Amino acid sequence: MNHHITLIGLGTIGISMAALHLRNSTSTLHLFDTRPDLQAYIESTLPPFLSPDTPSVTSLLSTGRLIIHSSLESAIKPATIIQEQGPETPTFKQTLWKQVESLASKNAHFWTSTSGIPASVQMEGMSGKTRLLVVHPFNPPHIMPLIELVPAPTTTASEVDFAREYFSSLGSGHRPVVVKKEVPGFVGNRLAFALLREACHLVKEGVVSAPDLDTILMASLGPRWAVNGVFESYQAGGGEGGIGSFLGKLEGTIQHVWDDLGKIDMEGDNEWREEVVRQTDEAYGVSMGDKARVKEEKLRKVLDVQNENIE
Amino acid sequence: MNHHITLIGLGTIGISMAALHLRNSTSTLHLFDTRPDLQAYIESTLPPFLSPDTPSVTSLLSTGRLIIHSSLESAIKPATIIQEQGPETPTFKQTLWKQVESLASKNAHFWTSTSGIPASVQMEGMSGKTRLLVVHPFNPPHIMPLIELVPAPTTTASEVDFAREYFSSLGSGHRPVVVKKEVPGFVGNRLAFALLREACHLVKEGVVSAPDLDTILMASLGPRWAVNGVFESYQAGGGEGGIGSFLGKLEGTIQHVWDDLGKIDMEGDNEWREEVVRQTDEAYGVSMGDKARVKEEKLRKVLDVQNENIE
Repeated sequence: MNHHITLIGLGTIGISMAALHLRNSTSTLHLFDTRPDLQAYIESTLPPFLSPDTPSVTSLLSTGRLIIHSSLESAIKPATIIQEQGPETPTFKQTLWKQVESLASKNAHFWTSTSGIPASVQMEGMSGKTRLLVVHPFNPPHIMPLIELVPAPTTTASEVDFAREYFSSLGSGHRPVVVKKEVPGFVGNRLAFALLREACHLVKEGVVSAPDLDTILMASLGPRWAVNGVFESYQAGGGEGGIGSFLGKLEGTIQHVWDDLGKIDMEGDNEWREEVVRQTDEAYGVSMGDKARVKEEKLRKVLDVQNENIE
Repeated sequence: MNHHITLIGLGTIGISMAALHLRNSTSTLHLFDTRPDLQAYIESTLPPFLSPDTPSVTSLLSTGRLIIHSSLESAIKPATIIQEQGPETPTFKQTLWKQVESLASKNAHFWTSTSGIPASVQMEGMSGKTRLLVVHPFNPPHIMPLIELVPAPTTTASEVDFAREYFSSLGSGHRPVVVKKEVPGFVGNRLAFALLREACHLVKEGVVSAPDLDTILMASLGPRWAVNGVFESYQAGGGEGGIGSFLGKLEGTIQHVWDDLGKIDMEGDNEWREEVVRQTDEAYGVSMGDKARVKEEKLRKVLDVQNENIE
């Protein structure tokens, strides 16, 4: 099906999302952002995200697959899907969706790429509360397969199904997963921040340096979790008894570690933050430079390994 | 340098360690375990861990590169390195090291593969407290690159250097990292258990199913951390301002998540454990079967990607 997808907000995530849709669907893309130089900006930032077999931006613009709009109204009118990647404040989102609702066709699907503001909060000023859901990608969206679908309690199941079907059928390897409750950070970032808190605590306590902790993660859990999830890993680790046997054998050690986990906070005594920043800056520098391209290629290769069929 | 390495305890970790030494060094391996059928056991369990270009177990035995001992005394006497993978109880370790100390050459290096009992506890009955350190591999040791070196406060720096040098120079891609304090779980398992706790909490709360959580991890953090550590990832995620800017922008969200992280325990109300076990068993079954081989090959390929030189 050929959709008309309107993207509102074209920062890094928006540009990457535009590339994802252009590379893997035949939909028409409508772009809107309040920056004044939008066309020049799109022409310079989008090309590196496109694959070699995607038409050039000039060609996409001239054939009408890509349309740059100068008003929100003209961008919304033709849309069958409206996806926003705007500023991460409740006020911005609430104001935007109220406007969108008044301009959009009554069957248009409403998606927000937010990483933290639940759909139920964003829809506060809307008169209909059934269409909007969170469609949270992981950075960079055109490569990373995860799409977290987080409906508000009032979002209809058919909207969730529609978004899941859309991303599953792109052929891009994206893996939409439904998160059933609107918890802070959804699931991916909660897991990441749980580990980050302990990582910062260990650096703070001088147990290990920031780059040594990165080496530990890359030499163990990263590759393991690229191949097996955490539950499947421990299912295997428990032998014939599976994860039940694993938890049984290690319950003492696990509880001992849980009781000892760091409880640092972002506010209050902030010395750990300075130390983490200092060690990280010193280890990696502040400019990624050419490393970013190499890392991106490695990420693609790891994802290829995940999808490989091994007999 | 040709070492005489004595391995005490030949469960899965011991067998995999034997393979690591045999595949990547020219050392002589001495094996001791209290199981009565040791030779037959070694002949049947070791071969799958050896690479195609390693001599067969029969040949290793006949040329004297592999020696199976029937007494602790004869196994210890010739050793330059003694490494134990015995039962994970303080009493076993303390009794063993006391015996080992009385039998070993005075320059022999003492390594314990424990995942949880600090060297300072294991050495309690020893008269010398300078030689023993934790050399903690990640499962499976012959593939997974991480080796956590955790000295007791009394272990000499030269013992740490010796172990680091040994594993760095194997050419096997192993990455020894020094953990500077004897914290519960060391570093790798602390990070794993911090994430596991939140993963179990989210399943308990019905936010996501166990297999869906695994999909989320494999579609986002696993591949990311296979390519970049957690600090390096956020250094990149912060753009020109690095991790300092990342933490600054997201401090509210991160703190919100930290305050909301699950505080489940292994004891007390255990319903979450049953639910996690039930969902994991249902999703993956209890027998890995042929999947284990496929997963191992994928793990090797992910590690190959890490080591690849990309121009």
